[in-house]
Amino acid sequence: MKTPNLICTKCKKTFPIDQIHPRCDICNEPLELEKITTGKISNGNIFTQTILERYAAFFPFIRIDKALSLHEGFTPLVESLKLSSYLAVKNILFKNESQNPTWSFKDRGTITGIQHAINLGYKRIGTVSTGNMAVSVAAYGAKAGLKTFILVSANLPPEKINPIAIYDPILIRVDGDYAKLYFDSLEIGKQNAIYFINSDVPFRVEGYKTTAFEICEQMNFELPDYVVVPTSSGGNLRGILKGFEEFKLCGLIDKVPKMVCAQASGCSPIYNAYINNADVISRVENPHTIAHAIENPYPPSGNEVLRKIRENGGTVITVTDEEIIQAQKQMAGIGIFAQPASAVPLASGKRLKEQNFIGENDTVVCIVTGAGLKDTTILEKPALKIINCKSEDLNKLIGNVLQ
Amino acid sequence: MKTPNLICTKCKKTFPIDQIHPRCDICNEPLELEKITTGKISNGNIFTQTILERYAAFFPFIRIDKALSLHEGFTPLVESLKLSSYLAVKNILFKNESQNPTWSFKDRGTITGIQHAINLGYKRIGTVSTGNMAVSVAAYGAKAGLKTFILVSANLPPEKINPIAIYDPILIRVDGDYAKLYFDSLEIGKQNAIYFINSDVPFRVEGYKTTAFEICEQMNFELPDYVVVPTSSGGNLRGILKGFEEFKLCGLIDKVPKMVCAQASGCSPIYNAYINNADVISRVENPHTIAHAIENPYPPSGNEVLRKIRENGGTVITVTDEEIIQAQKQMAGIGIFAQPASAVPLASGKRLKEQNFIGENDTVVCIVTGAGLKDTTILEKPALKIINCKSEDLNKLIGNVLQ
Repeated sequence: MKTPNLICTKCKKTFPIDQIHPRCDICNEPLELEKITTGKISNGNIFTQTILERYAAFFPFIRIDKALSLHEGFTPLVESLKLSSYLAVKNILFKNESQNPTWSFKDRGTITGIQHAINLGYKRIGTVSTGNMAVSVAAYGAKAGLKTFILVSANLPPEKINPIAIYDPILIRVDGDYAKLYFDSLEIGKQNAIYFINSDVPFRVEGYKTTAFEICEQMNFELPDYVVVPTSSGGNLRGILKGFEEFKLCGLIDKVPKMVCAQASGCSPIYNAYINNADVISRVENPHTIAHAIENPYPPSGNEVLRKIRENGGTVITVTDEEIIQAQKQMAGIGIFAQPASAVPLASGKRLKEQNFIGENDTVVCIVTGAGLKDTTILEKPALKIINCKSEDLNKLIGNVLQ
Repeated sequence: MKTPNLICTKCKKTFPIDQIHPRCDICNEPLELEKITTGKISNGNIFTQTILERYAAFFPFIRIDKALSLHEGFTPLVESLKLSSYLAVKNILFKNESQNPTWSFKDRGTITGIQHAINLGYKRIGTVSTGNMAVSVAAYGAKAGLKTFILVSANLPPEKINPIAIYDPILIRVDGDYAKLYFDSLEIGKQNAIYFINSDVPFRVEGYKTTAFEICEQMNFELPDYVVVPTSSGGNLRGILKGFEEFKLCGLIDKVPKMVCAQASGCSPIYNAYINNADVISRVENPHTIAHAIENPYPPSGNEVLRKIRENGGTVITVTDEEIIQAQKQMAGIGIFAQPASAVPLASGKRLKEQNFIGENDTVVCIVTGAGLKDTTILEKPALKIINCKSEDLNKLIGNVLQ
């Protein structure tokens, strides 16, 4: 494979692959790796392979260290007749990323980020995150034996801190403008030889291609019409779309699904720009949604997601917290307990069907980005259906329930 | 395949396969399915297969409904050079069951239990559990569209109730002798046509065979010397051992690993009987351990585990809460955040190596039964290493950390 360059997603200026700064010095837009145009899936058994081994032809790694892997990816694609008929579409499927090693999709991008860091000789990594990505980078940093810096916001509650701290990273609560920290961290990384695997850096986005690769394999290369992605920074949507595009360039598939960028109405910078026909996003003031994992007021890949969605023919949509809570319950009703952000695709699919954007003969894949166990405190609010009973009355009670 | 009978694990009396009562009417010991003696692994890609399809030859199902599956099993086996050298053994591997659909090993036994219930025509299922099994049965009951009864103890805290309630089962908090409820539920099930998929019923134990089958495949049929299982009811250990035994009977492997029954010292009924050379376990009064998932004072398969361990040449061991907490941190140190019960095997392996029961040339597989996210409240006690910092001081702080 010819070593691909980094390329500006907007102006197409190229940069060497070993450049760490993830943005163009002219546009300040995100860089990405040039697309792979020839390649095929490795033979082998996914029981013992890793995603980097199976899809090695689609990554420019000079070396793959299996010991870095916690066996991320190869997650299920779960069908549901019940929800297909609820939505009145041909088929709805859930790519359940909650079965990753740290129970979110982030692990796919962390493994590619860490592999790149190690191939470049870095001994220190880091990330800026308050949620899934912090957990993922802390875990993989521990596995790799690297010094790992996790920068979180000062107000993060204990139930979010503890599952990061358990991996024993250098965990810093930063008091200040948290959104600015994404950009500050790049400078800090440069000065201290720390590779920050932030939300949309090129080698994290690369990892998310594997979600698309797996969907192709799991659907026997008969692709869905739509892939709906809960969208925060924009990194995951970009990666998944790039995966489909590369498989198409390599002749493995003959179409690319339409991508749906799904946001919460309490924090929807990409949607706001999309409906206003704007080219650039504006920062959302006072974001507020229960879907904390996508509560990003100024997503660093927001403009690129706008460009890509317009080119791809997909769309951008928002749903309310009420719709998210309903969708979370409906997914639990088919056995999948997703965190609120991960219920956004189902709620979005429902809206898009009602708007006739999605049709009755369409197949829709929803990306379930993370586990419901990540956010159990939000469940304490709705009235739960619990029956209390003395043991001696149990048989009678159950008899009554069944009448 | 000839339809196997149920057989008493102690007196070997046989019962028809469709008997629901899981215990012998003479011994009151658990029943199990007769062992499969001929069979092979199905061809096919585990990307799209389920465990019931791949290992169909090892189950007596007249019908397999793929729609019942949430794609349980096919979990990673993670190696660690770091912990191998810490234990001073040849190799230690972690079978990470936290990557199951409801983030514990229970899903393997729930799918086999539900498949059997449906094949027998049941429309109602249930379980008696306060933890992983309640979540698993609630999830699979929802997926199958069955009326699902979950009986939990009256004092279960909200953080444990909510992740069960989200699946919307008939959730009953039972005030009374909780251990007795296991036996009461069998009678209630009979009267109300509810199939209770409790901890060690024969068709739940069957599902755990797949853990052994996968270990064989993942290790390329070069088996470990020891498999260490956190032990509560005894159902998981019994199933895993039965899996190895069936593969041996079918000529797929030529030895059976030694099984280690690992308990917490605050609740170790099987260990107590083992060291006293007793044939039957005694109820533990006032059990107390942070490893709640294995805090079972009177395990229904306890006597059978004793018999099996003695026959197999393995052993029974206990570890303290302090050892468990240390092992949990060490596992997080290689990227695996396990619930306390799931750190018991590593702590046990350490003890057994120190006692020279395990040798330096041995390979050990630890069963990581469930996710650390299930029990995050326990993490609030140890002092966490967190640094607080203003954003303008961050670069200086990181410079200092690195000096």
